[in-house]
Amino acid sequence: MTALDDLKEELVTANHILANERVLDSFGHISVRHPDEPGHFLLSRARAPQLAVTGDIMEFTLDGEIVGAASGKPYSERFIHGAIYEARPDVLAVVHNHSPNVVPFTVTRQRMRPIMHMCGPIGGDIPNWDIRQKFGDTNLLVTSMEIGRDFATTLGSNTVALMRGHGSTVVGRSVRDVVFTSVYMELNAEMLIKALSMGEVTYLSDGEIAAITKGRAGFTFERGWENWCRRVGRPYVAQDWNMGEGFSKTDG
Amino acid sequence: MTALDDLKEELVTANHILANERVLDSFGHISVRHPDEPGHFLLSRARAPQLAVTGDIMEFTLDGEIVGAASGKPYSERFIHGAIYEARPDVLAVVHNHSPNVVPFTVTRQRMRPIMHMCGPIGGDIPNWDIRQKFGDTNLLVTSMEIGRDFATTLGSNTVALMRGHGSTVVGRSVRDVVFTSVYMELNAEMLIKALSMGEVTYLSDGEIAAITKGRAGFTFERGWENWCRRVGRPYVAQDWNMGEGFSKTDG
Amino acid sequence: MTALDDLKEELVTANHILANERVLDSFGHISVRHPDEPGHFLLSRARAPQLAVTGDIMEFTLDGEIVGAASGKPYSERFIHGAIYEARPDVLAVVHNHSPNVVPFTVTRQRMRPIMHMCGPIGGDIPNWDIRQKFGDTNLLVTSMEIGRDFATTLGSNTVALMRGHGSTVVGRSVRDVVFTSVYMELNAEMLIKALSMGEVTYLSDGEIAAITKGRAGFTFERGWENWCRRVGRPYVAQDWNMGEGFSKTDG
Amino acid sequence: MTALDDLKEELVTANHILANERVLDSFGHISVRHPDEPGHFLLSRARAPQLAVTGDIMEFTLDGEIVGAASGKPYSERFIHGAIYEARPDVLAVVHNHSPNVVPFTVTRQRMRPIMHMCGPIGGDIPNWDIRQKFGDTNLLVTSMEIGRDFATTLGSNTVALMRGHGSTVVGRSVRDVVFTSVYMELNAEMLIKALSMGEVTYLSDGEIAAITKGRAGFTFERGWENWCRRVGRPYVAQDWNMGEGFSKTDG
Repeated sequence: MTALDDLKEELVTANHILANERVLDSFGHISVRHPDEPGHFLLSRARAPQLAVTGDIMEFTLDGEIVGAASGKPYSERFIHGAIYEARPDVLAVVHNHSPNVVPFTVTRQRMRPIMHMCGPIGGDIPNWDIRQKFGDTNLLVTSMEIGRDFATTLGSNTVALMRGHGSTVVGRSVRDVVFTSVYMELNAEMLIKALSMGEVTYLSDGEIAAITKGRAGFTFERGWENWCRRVGRPYVAQDWNMGEGFSKTDG
Repeated sequence: MTALDDLKEELVTANHILANERVLDSFGHISVRHPDEPGHFLLSRARAPQLAVTGDIMEFTLDGEIVGAASGKPYSERFIHGAIYEARPDVLAVVHNHSPNVVPFTVTRQRMRPIMHMCGPIGGDIPNWDIRQKFGDTNLLVTSMEIGRDFATTLGSNTVALMRGHGSTVVGRSVRDVVFTSVYMELNAEMLIKALSMGEVTYLSDGEIAAITKGRAGFTFERGWENWCRRVGRPYVAQDWNMGEGFSKTDG
Repeated sequence: MTALDDLKEELVTANHILANERVLDSFGHISVRHPDEPGHFLLSRARAPQLAVTGDIMEFTLDGEIVGAASGKPYSERFIHGAIYEARPDVLAVVHNHSPNVVPFTVTRQRMRPIMHMCGPIGGDIPNWDIRQKFGDTNLLVTSMEIGRDFATTLGSNTVALMRGHGSTVVGRSVRDVVFTSVYMELNAEMLIKALSMGEVTYLSDGEIAAITKGRAGFTFERGWENWCRRVGRPYVAQDWNMGEGFSKTDG
Repeated sequence: MTALDDLKEELVTANHILANERVLDSFGHISVRHPDEPGHFLLSRARAPQLAVTGDIMEFTLDGEIVGAASGKPYSERFIHGAIYEARPDVLAVVHNHSPNVVPFTVTRQRMRPIMHMCGPIGGDIPNWDIRQKFGDTNLLVTSMEIGRDFATTLGSNTVALMRGHGSTVVGRSVRDVVFTSVYMELNAEMLIKALSMGEVTYLSDGEIAAITKGRAGFTFERGWENWCRRVGRPYVAQDWNMGEGFSKTDG
């Protein structure tokens, strides 16, 4: 298999994992930037992520145009992905989700902020984008580059942005990275709702969030990834522990 | 197989899906209006929905009288279905449920209202019918056309009506439609209870609910349906994406 | 098989169902009064209910003495069962549980009371027995007839009594009856905690609870029992819909 | 097999159980003191506990140095275990977890305290260690003996200490003991959050906690252990009911 084939397989596995870990249900999607064509990205045809197979993966330009053969109808919200890849050259993978414990934070004034070290990489500043502010009463879907770019502006340089009445979008430097952040964002939200019911909460400090984020290392991603693969019955293909710029090579 | 056979198979699948997605437990039921006899409807014999098979499906007049052979004891609450089909010619399918996150809304003054786009089709106005108001102290069951008609009056032209201390009833224009609305009503209730614990909530606006409801399209139902079929081990039989009047043919 | 063998099989099935429906975990137990010897009862040896097999079922006098062969160590809390059978000739089956959503009600002043028709049979008055009141600081276990009789006094003529910091005990007129009440008590507690978080709650009225309890019928128990059997992989053995005195023979 | 081999098998089983009972996810770990070398302990290589196999078990000095062959990369937080074994000769097994219902208690002022008899052994005084107090802004991990010893000082003679924004650590006199306490701590936290939402809570008294803890007996551990083994598909190897000093030999 080529490196591109491997990446497609990893993307299919990520689809299954995100559904199994309750980040996605029949809706939501994950993409990865094309490794050889930074102006393209890979994304399944419009299908429940739990069902995605390698043949479903399609290639798109950043404007959301299909490149090559179409395996089927594309996701109408592919513009979330394209607009982010356009605005953020550092981003190599994107998850758009309706993570069920995160949605409540999109419709209240309680801020989402990490309370536990595993969840630190979601970041300390998580904006909440409201489509209504610029586009009025809509069906809330991001169905054009214009809307996608407006969302990307709110996302800015953050790792996560909430979407009012809809869900959230998470970005990362690899498929593993963005899956990891998504799984632990859902857990953080679940635990934070419970903590808030008991009174004042001590969030991670900015310094702690920075130390945790800087310290992410390949072997941490591999530990979760191997486990999640087993849980969905997909083969585990090990990756190098050295994940390059922006990640740690050492423990602790 | 005839079209009627296909519809019975779809109804059996819907029974299994609703049980698996936690809308129904051993109780609750789903019916569909007879495609050739608008004055009749199809409904399983009184059985846990998870166990329903094709041979369990019976035919009823709107008054709840059995048409043809009886596969067994009928549901004592079949009058919910009949009375709605009588009052609402636009309704082609009905789910009566004890959806566990919805029940709390039937016994408090908190209003159920959608907070997330997937849940928009439950509608902005959801009445809460109380059997006690007209019938006094009962076992809360809708066991006659008289009670069924009273409930149908409260339902009015809405998609959902709550039933105090009991559950709710959802109507739709197809089996897929009514299953979809039921699954996402349960999710909306689960998320809304959490959101309310964190303070003031921003619900979808009336304009958003209208845009979402008008924009429902066949391919959206298919995406969920295929996934839910797989989860219960039932064959997925694809349907036309063009669902006719009241549904969208396009994306977004 | 004899009628006694059938009853032992039903008791094993009940053990598995209660574990699967989250009423019991590795602890808690269900007994049935001996059909031919009203002064004896049947109960598994001390074992996680999920693992119970027919050979584990033992016979006891109401004082908790083993009758015949011992399959192993008896439950140290068998006195809960014996003391209730002694005080309540109408009781034919008993479940002692640590039902996880019920325990919170044993340590707060919020009253447990049914909010939904399926849960009506738990009754409107549910006392909360505190072992400390008479026996001071203990390990909270009911390990003698003296303690068991004190609990039975608090239970009185009710269907359920809570046990502070411990769990609850449910009584019924058959294995099916007591399992049904136990499963829906756990559901009532789960839904009530959520309802209470949203404000003032409308409970079932006394008249409604009476109508529901009086209206329980064999076919209702069978509908749940068949489904729960399937979920734990145990054979479903149908019973007569006419359950005798105290139960309804008709619908609604 | 030697006694050491048996212990390694038990440790692998414990890894699977703790993951299945939701005490651990892909992270967290359990160790046991070496039975023949009290200055050594056994711990899996850095791997998701659900996946641990016998060949993964490694031996360490209390300072966290690998003894003999390395099966792979060690956990960076092995110093939690070493520092506790160093400070507490009575401790023979340690679980470090991110138990999801416990984490909220590490970031609020609500105290964790047992409300139910099964959970009594977590103890009445549960300190909450904050790494920031001595080490400032870190990634919250215990990656050196210096940090481990600071945590062990806070743990003192207790059975559990919380770790702010991180999780908790539980100690015991055997693998069974520490697994039992960990499983019921998670359950206690889940039930306590719900109880607190309903008003003032009656915790177990100090006298009750002492009676429960003193009364723990081998057959109680065996009842849970056999059940948990079955749930993860691991063989159940029975142990002597007489667990020695600090445990009861009798019922109740």
